[in-house]
Amino acid sequence: MNKIITIGREFGSGGRELGRRLARELGFDYYDKQILSEIAKHTSLSEEYVQQVVENQPRQLFPITVGRSFMYVDTQPLQQASAVFQAQQEIIREMAERSSCIIVGRCADYILRDMKPFRIFVYADMQSRINRCRSRAAEGEHMTDKEYKQQITGMDKSRARYYDFYTDMKWGDKLNYELCINTTNQDIPTLVGFLARIFK
Amino acid sequence: MNKIITIGREFGSGGRELGRRLARELGFDYYDKQILSEIAKHTSLSEEYVQQVVENQPRQLFPITVGRSFMYVDTQPLQQASAVFQAQQEIIREMAERSSCIIVGRCADYILRDMKPFRIFVYADMQSRINRCRSRAAEGEHMTDKEYKQQITGMDKSRARYYDFYTDMKWGDKLNYELCINTTNQDIPTLVGFLARIFK
Repeated sequence: MNKIITIGREFGSGGRELGRRLARELGFDYYDKQILSEIAKHTSLSEEYVQQVVENQPRQLFPITVGRSFMYVDTQPLQQASAVFQAQQEIIREMAERSSCIIVGRCADYILRDMKPFRIFVYADMQSRINRCRSRAAEGEHMTDKEYKQQITGMDKSRARYYDFYTDMKWGDKLNYELCINTTNQDIPTLVGFLARIFK
Repeated sequence: MNKIITIGREFGSGGRELGRRLARELGFDYYDKQILSEIAKHTSLSEEYVQQVVENQPRQLFPITVGRSFMYVDTQPLQQASAVFQAQQEIIREMAERSSCIIVGRCADYILRDMKPFRIFVYADMQSRINRCRSRAAEGEHMTDKEYKQQITGMDKSRARYYDFYTDMKWGDKLNYELCINTTNQDIPTLVGFLARIFK
């Protein structure tokens, strides 16, 4: 039977690097952003649109009550968001059935719950996440700590909203994961070396 | 240099069993309840009294303001609680300096923070903790799920209050630990087998 590891992670905590390196170490397939390209192929939506849907969902897509009546709302975005999540479910299930793999984000822990994946959550303190973001910034990008903090908090909120909406669980709540790993002041390659021993 | 592992744990999560087995596996010394006996020896207080102090602290020990003046309060319990924590600090530091060890509870993660211990938090969902408590119940003890839940919640509250008071940190908050381990539906000996590979 395939071994499935899912990784949820706070923005800037190094969860994606940890997942990628762990997959390499274990010889597992690895999936993160490419899931979006696959969704685009399945739904005939552009990759940019899919990206936008998964980042803004579901805050903007609900009818708003004004007085006693619903305002007119265009339901197309809601239908498309639903189609995107449907495609995401199918793609992730196919990936998990194909081979042992590590999947980062995209509610994979919830989607694959019947397969009992090993669920990891990666987190770190704010300063360490700011430092990490800065060390990976594009050339010419100069943001203050405060600006990084805003970006990090915003991304986390967006992930939490998305996860909580589709799963009815709480993003980052310890109880949804087998293992929560703090990367503050940790060297990710060393950490992966330790972790890999658990799965070998 | 000695390797120090500290373990915080939710009541009924199996943290103590995990710690004891992990220490045996690694050949480390192991400390939990015996710290209380050591405190009793250091302070000339009875072990029962020490137990009572660490379980009820610090809720009952503060002056209460009535109108503009403080009510008369007996400060002896406060002084004794302080003496107990002082002794606890000394004993735990001595243990950590003596040999590589695992220490369960007693704010050891905070007391030894300068030695950078590897800090683990062990938790599980409520039903699994209830089942665990029931499987370890004394002969003749017949408690309902509701009664176990009350006991578990009460013990956790007491631990949280004690920890938060002495450390200025939040008990069970992921950020205070390197690793948080969910024991729900897990076999502790198997888990220890995996964990031990990290430290070997």
